[in-house]
Amino acid sequence: MRYVVIMAGGSGTRLWPLSRKGTPKQLLKLISGQSLLQLAYERASRVVPPERIVVVTGEAYLDAVARELPALPAENLLGEPEGRDSLNACAWPAAVLLRRDPDAVIAQLTADHVIEPVDAFAGALDQAFTIAESSPDVLVTLGVVPTSAHTGYGYLQRGEPLADHPGACAVANFKEKPPLATAAMYVTSGDYWWNAGMFVWRASTFLEQLRLLEPTTYADIMTLADHPGRLAEIFPTLTKISVDYAILEPVAHGKASARVVAVPLGVDWRDVGGFASLGELLPSDSDDNASNALIQTLDATNNIVLDHSGSGQLIALLGVSDLVIVQTPDAILVATKDQAEKVKALVAKIAESAPDYA
Amino acid sequence: MRYVVIMAGGSGTRLWPLSRKGTPKQLLKLISGQSLLQLAYERASRVVPPERIVVVTGEAYLDAVARELPALPAENLLGEPEGRDSLNACAWPAAVLLRRDPDAVIAQLTADHVIEPVDAFAGALDQAFTIAESSPDVLVTLGVVPTSAHTGYGYLQRGEPLADHPGACAVANFKEKPPLATAAMYVTSGDYWWNAGMFVWRASTFLEQLRLLEPTTYADIMTLADHPGRLAEIFPTLTKISVDYAILEPVAHGKASARVVAVPLGVDWRDVGGFASLGELLPSDSDDNASNALIQTLDATNNIVLDHSGSGQLIALLGVSDLVIVQTPDAILVATKDQAEKVKALVAKIAESAPDYA
Repeated sequence: MRYVVIMAGGSGTRLWPLSRKGTPKQLLKLISGQSLLQLAYERASRVVPPERIVVVTGEAYLDAVARELPALPAENLLGEPEGRDSLNACAWPAAVLLRRDPDAVIAQLTADHVIEPVDAFAGALDQAFTIAESSPDVLVTLGVVPTSAHTGYGYLQRGEPLADHPGACAVANFKEKPPLATAAMYVTSGDYWWNAGMFVWRASTFLEQLRLLEPTTYADIMTLADHPGRLAEIFPTLTKISVDYAILEPVAHGKASARVVAVPLGVDWRDVGGFASLGELLPSDSDDNASNALIQTLDATNNIVLDHSGSGQLIALLGVSDLVIVQTPDAILVATKDQAEKVKALVAKIAESAPDYA
Repeated sequence: MRYVVIMAGGSGTRLWPLSRKGTPKQLLKLISGQSLLQLAYERASRVVPPERIVVVTGEAYLDAVARELPALPAENLLGEPEGRDSLNACAWPAAVLLRRDPDAVIAQLTADHVIEPVDAFAGALDQAFTIAESSPDVLVTLGVVPTSAHTGYGYLQRGEPLADHPGACAVANFKEKPPLATAAMYVTSGDYWWNAGMFVWRASTFLEQLRLLEPTTYADIMTLADHPGRLAEIFPTLTKISVDYAILEPVAHGKASARVVAVPLGVDWRDVGGFASLGELLPSDSDDNASNALIQTLDATNNIVLDHSGSGQLIALLGVSDLVIVQTPDAILVATKDQAEKVKALVAKIAESAPDYA
C-alpha cells in the first residue's frame, strides 16, 4: 500500500521573527492563511487517505501539528526528541510502516516548499509510486526541472532513460550546491535536475540499503520500531547525517543492492526558506512592494512587508527600497534584502541579550 | 507685571505618525516622557507664576492642554477656532492681557524647541523684560547665537549695541531662511543671530504698532478682547500673516513708532520639527542608532527608532542605515532620513485613502 511521510522538522531561524523557538517555519500561516504543513498535507491527501499519512516533526511541535491536522491519526504523528538529520527522519517512519505493512511504499516528502500545480505533483508522485512498486530494487528520487541557475539547491545528473517510464531516468550523480557558473552550465545542458529532497521507495528496499550501508543505525531504528517506549533513549544516539550522503549517493554509485532512479517534477517549486522567496508569494503593488499588510507608500519600491502581528497597523513606507519589514506581536524586523540572510546571526545575538525574543 | 504667552498651535504633520489630527507635536511626550508644551510651561514657570502664564492653542486641543497643565487657570487658555498665523497668536493674548493689566509686559514664547540650559534662558528673558519695561518704545526679539550654518532658520542682522544692556543690540535687518553659503557667511561674520521667533514687549507697545500697521486687525482684536463670545465670528476673518512680516520687519525699518532690539540667547536651542532633530535628543548606541525603544542591531548604523506604541516590541535592525522608523499603536513609518521631510505628502495621500490613519 502507498503511504506519504511528511518531514516537518527544523526551526527556520531564517524567517525570524515569524519563525520562533516554539513556531517553526512549517507551522506559520504564510500562504493565504495556511501553513506549509497544511499545504503539504493537502498534497498528500490527493494520493492517500489520512490514515496513510505520517508526519515526522520535533517533539516540541507535536501538539501544534495535531491541532493543525485534526484528521491525522495520533499514531501517525512521530515526534523526534531532537533533530538527527534526514536519514533518521526517513528511517524511523520506514521502520514503523514496515512493521504495519510489509509492502509499504513510501513517498517521503518535505514541507518546505510551495508546489504548483498540485495536479502535476500528484501525477509525478503516481509515476514514482508505480516505478517503486514494479521494481523492488529502486529508490526513486524526485527531480525538479530547473527554471533558473539556482545556487541554493543540489542537482541530480541524469543517466540512462527508463524504458517503460517516459521521462524517468537513472541518476548518474548527485551534485552539491554549485557556484553560479556551474549551475548555469547544468541548466543549459539539460542534463541536470534540482534535487528536491523528496523520494519514493518501498520501506523494505530502503531499510535493506540502510542495513548494508549503516548497519548500526539500521539495528537501532528497527529496535525503536519494535519498542516505541525507548524513543528518548535511542533517538538521540543515532548518527546525524543526511539521507543523501548516507543512502542515495552510495546507492547511486553501486555501493549497496539497489539503484537510484529519478522522476521529473514539472512544477513551480519554490523554497520559502527566506523572505525573498516568501515575498514572491505575496501580492505586489505597481512599485513591486510585496505585502500582506495594510501599506501606504511614497517613492518606495521593491520592498517586502509581512505583518503577522494582528495589530491592524498601517505600515507606511517613504523613500525606502529593497527592504524586508516583518512584524509579529512582540518583534519587528527591518532589514535590507541583501543582508536578510544574516538574520540567523542577529537571532543568535538576540538569544544572548534578550532571549524571550529569540 | 510680567506675563508669558506660550504659542502651542500647529499640527506638526512632519512628525506623522507621532503627530496626528488630534495630537499635535507640542502635546507629544517626546522628551523623557514630557511634552514640548510641558517643557515650555516649566520654563515659563521659572519667571512668572501660573496665573500669569497664557497658552494659545487650537480649539481642538483645549481639553488636552488643560489635562497637561492642570495648574493653568482656565481663563488663561485661549483656543483658536482655526490657525490664523503668528500675528493673531500674538495680538489676541496681548489684547486680552492689556484689558486685565494696562502695564502687562509679555514674553511671547514658542513650544517648538528644546532649550538648554534653562537658567540661561531665564536670564535672557529677564534681560529682555527689563529692556521692555524700561523703554516704552521697543519690541524685543530673542536672537539665538548660532552654532551652525543652519538653513532652516531665519536670521537677525545685528545693529548698534544698546548702551545700558550688555550683549543687546538694535536689529538692522531680518533675513529669510538662507542658502547654505549665505548661512555660512552669516555665522562666520558674527553679525547674525538665529531669529528664535520669541519676543518680549509691552502689550500696549505691541498693540500700538499693530494699530499703525494693521488697523483692521487691531480693531477686530480689541473687539474680540472686549467680547469673547464673538470668537467664532471674528477669529476666522483675521488676516493670516506672520508677526515677523506684519510687525517686526516694518517696525525695524522705521515704519511705525517703536524700534526692534535683540537680546542674545546663549543656549542650546533645538528645533524638534522633524525626525532628524528629534533623533539628536535620544540616546545613541555606538553605531549612531538613536532610539527610545528596545532595539537590537546587526550591521545597522545611523538610524532613528522611535517607539510610541507601548507595545514593548523588540525592534531589530539588520543591515540598514540612515532610516527613520516610527511606531505608534496604529501606524508604523519606515522612511529614509533623506526623504523623511516628504512625510507631509505621504500623510496627504493617507488622508485620502485611509483617513483614520492620517
